Amino acid sequence: MDSRTPSDSKTILTDLVLPSETNPLGNLFGGELLARMDRAASIAARRHSRRIVVTASVNHVAFNRMIALGSVVTVEAKISRAFKTSMEVIIDVWIEDRESGLKTQANEAIYTFVAVDEQGQPVPVPQVVPESDLEKQRYDAALRRKQLSLVLAGKMKPAEATELKALFI
Amino acid sequence: MDSRTPSDSKTILTDLVLPSETNPLGNLFGGELLARMDRAASIAARRHSRRIVVTASVNHVAFNRMIALGSVVTVEAKISRAFKTSMEVIIDVWIEDRESGLKTQANEAIYTFVAVDEQGQPVPVPQVVPESDLEKQRYDAALRRKQLSLVLAGKMKPAEATELKALFI
Amino acid sequence: MDSRTPSDSKTILTDLVLPSETNPLGNLFGGELLARMDRAASIAARRHSRRIVVTASVNHVAFNRMIALGSVVTVEAKISRAFKTSMEVIIDVWIEDRESGLKTQANEAIYTFVAVDEQGQPVPVPQVVPESDLEKQRYDAALRRKQLSLVLAGKMKPAEATELKALFI
Amino acid sequence: MDSRTPSDSKTILTDLVLPSETNPLGNLFGGELLARMDRAASIAARRHSRRIVVTASVNHVAFNRMIALGSVVTVEAKISRAFKTSMEVIIDVWIEDRESGLKTQANEAIYTFVAVDEQGQPVPVPQVVPESDLEKQRYDAALRRKQLSLVLAGKMKPAEATELKALFI
Amino acid sequence: MDSRTPSDSKTILTDLVLPSETNPLGNLFGGELLARMDRAASIAARRHSRRIVVTASVNHVAFNRMIALGSVVTVEAKISRAFKTSMEVIIDVWIEDRESGLKTQANEAIYTFVAVDEQGQPVPVPQVVPESDLEKQRYDAALRRKQLSLVLAGKMKPAEATELKALFI
Amino acid sequence: MDSRTPSDSKTILTDLVLPSETNPLGNLFGGELLARMDRAASIAARRHSRRIVVTASVNHVAFNRMIALGSVVTVEAKISRAFKTSMEVIIDVWIEDRESGLKTQANEAIYTFVAVDEQGQPVPVPQVVPESDLEKQRYDAALRRKQLSLVLAGKMKPAEATELKALFI
Repeated sequence: MDSRTPSDSKTILTDLVLPSETNPLGNLFGGELLARMDRAASIAARRHSRRIVVTASVNHVAFNRMIALGSVVTVEAKISRAFKTSMEVIIDVWIEDRESGLKTQANEAIYTFVAVDEQGQPVPVPQVVPESDLEKQRYDAALRRKQLSLVLAGKMKPAEATELKALFI
Repeated sequence: MDSRTPSDSKTILTDLVLPSETNPLGNLFGGELLARMDRAASIAARRHSRRIVVTASVNHVAFNRMIALGSVVTVEAKISRAFKTSMEVIIDVWIEDRESGLKTQANEAIYTFVAVDEQGQPVPVPQVVPESDLEKQRYDAALRRKQLSLVLAGKMKPAEATELKALFI
Repeated sequence: MDSRTPSDSKTILTDLVLPSETNPLGNLFGGELLARMDRAASIAARRHSRRIVVTASVNHVAFNRMIALGSVVTVEAKISRAFKTSMEVIIDVWIEDRESGLKTQANEAIYTFVAVDEQGQPVPVPQVVPESDLEKQRYDAALRRKQLSLVLAGKMKPAEATELKALFI
Repeated sequence: MDSRTPSDSKTILTDLVLPSETNPLGNLFGGELLARMDRAASIAARRHSRRIVVTASVNHVAFNRMIALGSVVTVEAKISRAFKTSMEVIIDVWIEDRESGLKTQANEAIYTFVAVDEQGQPVPVPQVVPESDLEKQRYDAALRRKQLSLVLAGKMKPAEATELKALFI
Repeated sequence: MDSRTPSDSKTILTDLVLPSETNPLGNLFGGELLARMDRAASIAARRHSRRIVVTASVNHVAFNRMIALGSVVTVEAKISRAFKTSMEVIIDVWIEDRESGLKTQANEAIYTFVAVDEQGQPVPVPQVVPESDLEKQRYDAALRRKQLSLVLAGKMKPAEATELKALFI
Repeated sequence: MDSRTPSDSKTILTDLVLPSETNPLGNLFGGELLARMDRAASIAARRHSRRIVVTASVNHVAFNRMIALGSVVTVEAKISRAFKTSMEVIIDVWIEDRESGLKTQANEAIYTFVAVDEQGQPVPVPQVVPESDLEKQRYDAALRRKQLSLVLAGKMKPAEATELKALFI
């Protein structure tokens, strides 16, 4: 099975913030942004694995900026690291100023997907070969996040989470 | 400012899985469930604080079970712990079998909200007094999650995350 | 077949009024509220009968108060009385003030559902045993409403509608 | 103020049943049809009164036939009778067979709307002059329905509901 | 196969402009109007052919007037001309003033549909017999539009587009 | 005012086909695709002009391939040519095979947008400098399409449409 680069799975979803997606203050609903990111990330995971994929977990999403009605929002998703049957996808969200054309980052999120066959059973996925510095940095951090997730779920003893333990000692 | 119990903010959203919310396999979209949980959790945070609230982060969401078209889904949100201006909300998701009436847990998620005034500035919120054993356990764990979140965001040194550090040493 | 209490079928759907659900005056559309009530009532009828259920009629809905964008609306549905294959469901709608936390009733509606098998044929449902005074009062009134419905549809002679006739003589 | 005929307010809304509007059995949701009828009826009431209108009540809706995904549904709304500030609207729902082109009636519903000014205060509306036999019959029945509604709401004594009383004695 | 008149396929879709369908300036989205016209036109094509129909092309749509939130919009679709397996549908869009009741035309669009069997293969459709002057004028223009479409797609040589060529020489 | 290249306005909207967007045959509705293209094209026009933009017309859309539920659809919009206050946008639609990863073109559409100020008055826009061969070819064809549009609208005499006339003589 070939390995693939994060660029191979890069998925861009640029769209407007519509009135039906805003909260009473006129900003994009957190829940609506989570749904858009889920769709973009699932396409990235599908492009990497060429398999049916299902959302396994949302690892972390920080909402740093409100996104106003009528904004142009770009959701960009790329695989950061693949494990046996699962893929970590990092999603960057950008908004752009209409008059200056400048883009600023509004959010970052990390989702995990699992590739499955037609019966819903997990199947192996290609490995990821990071290219840029940011991709390499995210590739390394993905292992710490996976260990953390296993520790929090009680599926790994803290003492065995070597990458993570190093952080605290 | 009065303190309140988790029961005071308890919010129940029972609804059907509609065709427009399902993925190609006929199951509820991860993104759609994230949006429902965001709405229920924001109501719980609003009931606790009696303020306008905005989603600050999604701490963790695990998707353990597929939820089929036509299912009855109950999303139940309660404040687990309040900090100065932020509130951690834990959301439990249940589905029930039509014929037997049995309920099984499908998901658990943790969201953080911040209470704001009309200008969007953070304002203090009442403290939480947990009552049941599960509420007390979630109250304690909330502090560890907060430290973890600060460490991962580079806003707290691992050595100062006393609750978290104890886990690894 | 066991009988069940109204509490056994109690269904709560608490949700926000979103911008996409409001009329040009910024209030929840009557039609949208009718749809939310239909979903909550159908879940209550399904919980009572443990069968597939279909809407048979909407008996009466009064819209007493406008419900503004951003409101928290609680739709609560309970079976009031069961007949051979049909169930009357009463739905109470509450809105709550964010600052005081006070709840006020905004609407009341009565829907009728029929339980069906996989081929769409009506099947018998358990009887209802009312517990509280309000439940008993609604249970009795349900028979008058059923007679009224049959009379209006020309399926019962007014003279045979004993419960109803007593009202006018 | 001029009087108007039912034809003056006639409103036709012909549209497809889309997948997002169907229940798990593949039929149009009762709640969705209630919402479509509310929109068509509110346009009829607005055409009659040339005022802002709000839904006051849904008097009766019977669901006689299931309406399948992909059906062409025609909702036709006309004012049946106007009172001081309120209007009764009768809505007929038709579905048509694609191959034969034959139309059959699927539902009939009765809604009541009130005309309001910009501050939401009720304002008088033109009277209705029925033309066809069916329109005259519906015009007469509207008074009985109004009395019934007042009696059920406890706003009129059964003994004063002359039109209605005559039915039972 | 019988021929049919444009009136036989006439389809009226009168509906409100809802908040979820407006752009940041509070006007009906171009895309949303295109979708409404597509649904009305497909029903007209289906009524004419009594077949499953699929959109083949959108020939021309001019957006002459903004349509504000809360407007009552009437979309009226009629077959203008049928070819072997395809049908040209002309859609007129009207908005009406609430206070005066006056209607003004907001848009005109031309769509082409193809009738297909259950396997998606094109099937012949009845011919159109125009009645009114406008219908006859549109019937004649439909042939020029068809030739233009074939020329632009490179499927007909300009020299063979006799109807069209006459326009320029 | 600077001129800009088509690449400067390039807008990519990659998203899934959801169940709520499909017709009874399980394919993406023509109307829904028109709406997606309208949103992507309006973002491209906004990026080019850095102004508020409104849809002026849809020049031509051919639906060459059905797009099935669950497909990944990429809508790519770029300005092809700018006139005084209007911009022609060409939209290419691609679908990709999950297993092979191959992309095939499903549609091509041409929309025209006008840049407006806050009062809705047209304002001048930067010119376009095409770079690739395809961009140059589309730039030249845009003038013919503009003339054709003016001729069809009766705003230009066929004899004056020099570019177009050359085609037929």
